Amino acid sequence: MKMENKEQEIKAPTIIAPPSGGRGVHVFAPATVANVVCGFDVLGFAVNEPGDEVIMRLTNKPGITISKITGDDGRLPLDPAKNTVSVSVQHYLQSVGRTDVGLDIELHKKMPIGSGLGSSSASTVAGLYAIKTLLGDDADPAKLLPFAMKGEEMACGHGHADNVAPALLGGFVLIRSYDPLDVIRLPHPAGLYCAIVFPDVDVPTREARQIIRQKINMKDAVTQWGNIAGLVSGLFMQDIDLIGRSMKDILVEPVRSMLIPDFYKMREIAMGMGAVSFGISGSGPSVFAFTKDEETAKLITQKLQQHLTSIKIGSNIYVSTINDAGPKVLG
Amino acid sequence: MKMENKEQEIKAPTIIAPPSGGRGVHVFAPATVANVVCGFDVLGFAVNEPGDEVIMRLTNKPGITISKITGDDGRLPLDPAKNTVSVSVQHYLQSVGRTDVGLDIELHKKMPIGSGLGSSSASTVAGLYAIKTLLGDDADPAKLLPFAMKGEEMACGHGHADNVAPALLGGFVLIRSYDPLDVIRLPHPAGLYCAIVFPDVDVPTREARQIIRQKINMKDAVTQWGNIAGLVSGLFMQDIDLIGRSMKDILVEPVRSMLIPDFYKMREIAMGMGAVSFGISGSGPSVFAFTKDEETAKLITQKLQQHLTSIKIGSNIYVSTINDAGPKVLG
Repeated sequence: MKMENKEQEIKAPTIIAPPSGGRGVHVFAPATVANVVCGFDVLGFAVNEPGDEVIMRLTNKPGITISKITGDDGRLPLDPAKNTVSVSVQHYLQSVGRTDVGLDIELHKKMPIGSGLGSSSASTVAGLYAIKTLLGDDADPAKLLPFAMKGEEMACGHGHADNVAPALLGGFVLIRSYDPLDVIRLPHPAGLYCAIVFPDVDVPTREARQIIRQKINMKDAVTQWGNIAGLVSGLFMQDIDLIGRSMKDILVEPVRSMLIPDFYKMREIAMGMGAVSFGISGSGPSVFAFTKDEETAKLITQKLQQHLTSIKIGSNIYVSTINDAGPKVLG
Repeated sequence: MKMENKEQEIKAPTIIAPPSGGRGVHVFAPATVANVVCGFDVLGFAVNEPGDEVIMRLTNKPGITISKITGDDGRLPLDPAKNTVSVSVQHYLQSVGRTDVGLDIELHKKMPIGSGLGSSSASTVAGLYAIKTLLGDDADPAKLLPFAMKGEEMACGHGHADNVAPALLGGFVLIRSYDPLDVIRLPHPAGLYCAIVFPDVDVPTREARQIIRQKINMKDAVTQWGNIAGLVSGLFMQDIDLIGRSMKDILVEPVRSMLIPDFYKMREIAMGMGAVSFGISGSGPSVFAFTKDEETAKLITQKLQQHLTSIKIGSNIYVSTINDAGPKVLG
């Protein structure tokens, strides 16, 4: 466990713009919180901060190059056959019959890798939205989902949609079914704030998945689907209290929380300060709380960061409303 | 398996009215479909037909008597200590401190017992609504739920709410949690019709519960909660197609359907005739289909009844919209 506060380093402004004269586009795609506590593998939502950025330029030579990656501490491959952004863009180009296109990609990571905030999804969605924009493809962004899932399969060994779907569509998204793929965008109350804390410890997604029990009690499953039905109802009814009391997870959290430093202490702090709910973001180690106002969200992130510092763990903190737009063109 | 069509017998009009001069009330409470396919133990809805009726009269002598039960083929006890209606009414009287009240109850069963249509719940709710009305108790009917659950505990050995809650509140009801009890009324599309077929075979609720597996695969549970989240979304979005494609049950139906004659054949018939969905009502043996119009619902029930007749099984059939009112005073 490293003692380091990465927020400054990652959030430092990177001045990036397509070179004048060349056709290029600069796209942001949001971080996402998968599972939303009681919706393991089927629910996720997007936030406005953090997120990743991709700059994509058309070139004269068919094929994809990755000229630059920043903010990744050298962890991501520049080889276009191994990078999730280029691989998913390549799938898209094949699908629309445009393998003649030449592209150069810059990827600017603005959030930590391995944080449980859908880092690879944000990059992949930014890349796909960039190529869609460059080619003037005005199809529904939801059509990009299968390509984004190809990227997830490469990044996590599992073609899940609970990060890529909300990153692409914005808001809360339910993946009702994978076969056939059935994705439903859910509403949410306007005044919902999200406090996110990333404790800088290593929780690889694959391992976080492997420790989950494969056999569970029917009784516990019934409790869980009562809660997800309550959460979905609360989102439609704009009932933040119902959302809060539905966000309980008796199946996955008890196991995954073991990989997160002082998880239950952090929950106690957050709930004591007025959080509506508290839980693990995706497979962790990031945790998140919903609040009814921005000030409470800010105070909670500060207090949790202080607590993590006191046990010698660095952290990144974010406060955001729900991102309803998905990816957006910055320039 | 008896070959007998009970519809005529049960639906024959019973002329019942409180004796002139005596203070009495005549109440109807609706049948209910629990589980709604993918919401095992947490979801249910009420229909307008069938339902049970209770006539309750104040008497001069404290205590409860049951003077008459019709439509039960002599299967239900007249002993007020053993009948779910009187037992739940007694719990209510104790709770409001009115054990001084004297009551006589007539119970008129207008639906088959052991049908999986919430027969005991309808009787219990009719009884509770009758005493509430007689005593002029204008509290929210939801306050009667704990007393109705006492009746269920006696009838089924299990204090479930997925029949009594919709019978009492009307419409679709989610029981998010039992401890503490958290019951949420859900909306539904206006043009939703329900076709119900009760094949006259014996499926005791206790046994139907015992055959359900106690340990399940996490993977299957995830599929199930994706579907219940989809069903709840479809109800809020008034999206009948989403409701239909969400109503799949890979955990309970494969086991319980074995107790229902030609279950999969009946599904094939109903879906082939344009049903939106098809499944088991509660623990069976009744089955139900949603349709988008009354005519399709009627044709489906007729066709399924013909099919059951061809394999020498009698049946009752019902077509109804969703009951949004719960119990009602008839006179």
